Amino acid sequence: MSMDRLIEKIVKTQNPTVAGLDPKLEYVPEYIKEKAFAKHGNTLKGAAKALLEFNKGMIDELCDIVPAVKPQCAYYEMYGYQGVKTLYKTMEYARKKGMIVITDGKRNDIGTTMEAYAIGHLGRTEVNGELLTAFPGDCLTVNGYLGSDGIKPLLTVCKEEDKGIFALVKTSNPSSGELQDRLIDGKPVYEIMGEMCEEWGKDVMGKYGYSAVGAVVGATYPEQLKELREKMPHTFFLVPGYGAQGGGAKDVSYAFDKNGLGAIVNSSRGIICAYKKEGCDEKDYAKAARREAIRMRNDIVGAIAKIQLGK
Amino acid sequence: MSMDRLIEKIVKTQNPTVAGLDPKLEYVPEYIKEKAFAKHGNTLKGAAKALLEFNKGMIDELCDIVPAVKPQCAYYEMYGYQGVKTLYKTMEYARKKGMIVITDGKRNDIGTTMEAYAIGHLGRTEVNGELLTAFPGDCLTVNGYLGSDGIKPLLTVCKEEDKGIFALVKTSNPSSGELQDRLIDGKPVYEIMGEMCEEWGKDVMGKYGYSAVGAVVGATYPEQLKELREKMPHTFFLVPGYGAQGGGAKDVSYAFDKNGLGAIVNSSRGIICAYKKEGCDEKDYAKAARREAIRMRNDIVGAIAKIQLGK
Repeated sequence: MSMDRLIEKIVKTQNPTVAGLDPKLEYVPEYIKEKAFAKHGNTLKGAAKALLEFNKGMIDELCDIVPAVKPQCAYYEMYGYQGVKTLYKTMEYARKKGMIVITDGKRNDIGTTMEAYAIGHLGRTEVNGELLTAFPGDCLTVNGYLGSDGIKPLLTVCKEEDKGIFALVKTSNPSSGELQDRLIDGKPVYEIMGEMCEEWGKDVMGKYGYSAVGAVVGATYPEQLKELREKMPHTFFLVPGYGAQGGGAKDVSYAFDKNGLGAIVNSSRGIICAYKKEGCDEKDYAKAARREAIRMRNDIVGAIAKIQLGK
Repeated sequence: MSMDRLIEKIVKTQNPTVAGLDPKLEYVPEYIKEKAFAKHGNTLKGAAKALLEFNKGMIDELCDIVPAVKPQCAYYEMYGYQGVKTLYKTMEYARKKGMIVITDGKRNDIGTTMEAYAIGHLGRTEVNGELLTAFPGDCLTVNGYLGSDGIKPLLTVCKEEDKGIFALVKTSNPSSGELQDRLIDGKPVYEIMGEMCEEWGKDVMGKYGYSAVGAVVGATYPEQLKELREKMPHTFFLVPGYGAQGGGAKDVSYAFDKNGLGAIVNSSRGIICAYKKEGCDEKDYAKAARREAIRMRNDIVGAIAKIQLGK
């Protein structure tokens, strides 16, 4: 199962974090944009080419110290199919550099349609007898509102292709409670969703005790994170909300198990905009991203160690 | 608001149905595939070109009698960025032929990320001062599990650009009840989601009494459809599940108001695979789709008339 590969990569790099590649054009240094617009004009293609160069530079500086990248589909779709080509090329490049790729698409649908998403994002597409890769992700974020019909097609592909998913359980945004915190038979909706993840995962267990069905649980709700960590012992967590959204290292430390595993923490803007915060030369944007990734790793690993020591 | 444009188009064509463009490669006639593969090889590009020709032929035959098309993103993403280019070209072609385009993406995220989806699918993307269209949809299906933070960025774009959304409320699949039917303070989750749609819609009301926030409610649950029609008087319904999934004309008729408006019923496989069911020459695939679209329209309009007459 792919969660095993992710865990092995985390252990190898001693870094339970993922770099969110959410490259808004305004984050891209001027020298990269100028070159792309000079060649392709002020077009979606020009924007997409600029984003790809930005991402590649970042991946070069992060690939030996960060186990995974998480491109967010929205920021690529915003630049049309040209942007989606950059998504593909970014994923391909990150994998070539040995990184695990978590596609943040929060896809959801039913039956044959979900099967199409599963094949497109985690499997292989048959074209006249050839098996081709539409998007080379290792894991995909998904939304379980539609129930098992929307998840089962993914599990088949996860098994066949050694891939994984992360289902939304408790999201990091301020209004996540509008539905997710409401009680069903005394249990919040997020807990019900968490129970479903544990159930879906039973048939796709990996060798380190975590299944191929992970969960998205936000760092901005540390109490729920703690509670869910206990109630979902076989579910690996993808934790957004660290940094820009307000989650600190202590908050995210609750996502980890007693072995210091069980979760991967995302930072997007914190890493990709580090050069703006530092105020360094924009040509050093990727080196600034690396410095921030190291700071984040040390921050989180330190907090996990404190928890493990019972402090 | 875009729901007004959709309603006007439905009235003009006297047809409250939408053709779901979910073109699996196996649905595409051999002569189209052969031509595409001969030119582009057994590649994602070849597949994408075949899908585009298939779609265009269908749109030519449907555009004067069917008000809208609903391309399902999954079936395009399955063919990579090349497939996503076909999605764009299909949308562009359908709009040029005067059809309303409902992008079935069930997108969901928070804050700036949802803003990126809103801009990409319903708005315009700024590239170095130019405003460009990433995907030219009129409406987008979305998933509200994340709460208001995931919907509000869409409403801003809907207002500015005269667009609409359809949020998942009660989906048509067998396991939709696993979460959606569970009770919160005595009310099922789908009803809570429905209440949110009514609330979100308040600020984007159109001139025919329906807001820019529509809802997806499946034909396979006629009782809930009836109940939600009463409880959500300002919310336009997109109704999947007619035909292949088991919903009949009487079932879907509950989605309509006393004026015979308030909903649009989708059929995907029923229409695009009509030539296979008919057993006609595959070169007549688009004409068979037209015949099925007319049959479906008459079936549904007849059932609505019965309801209006109190039968």
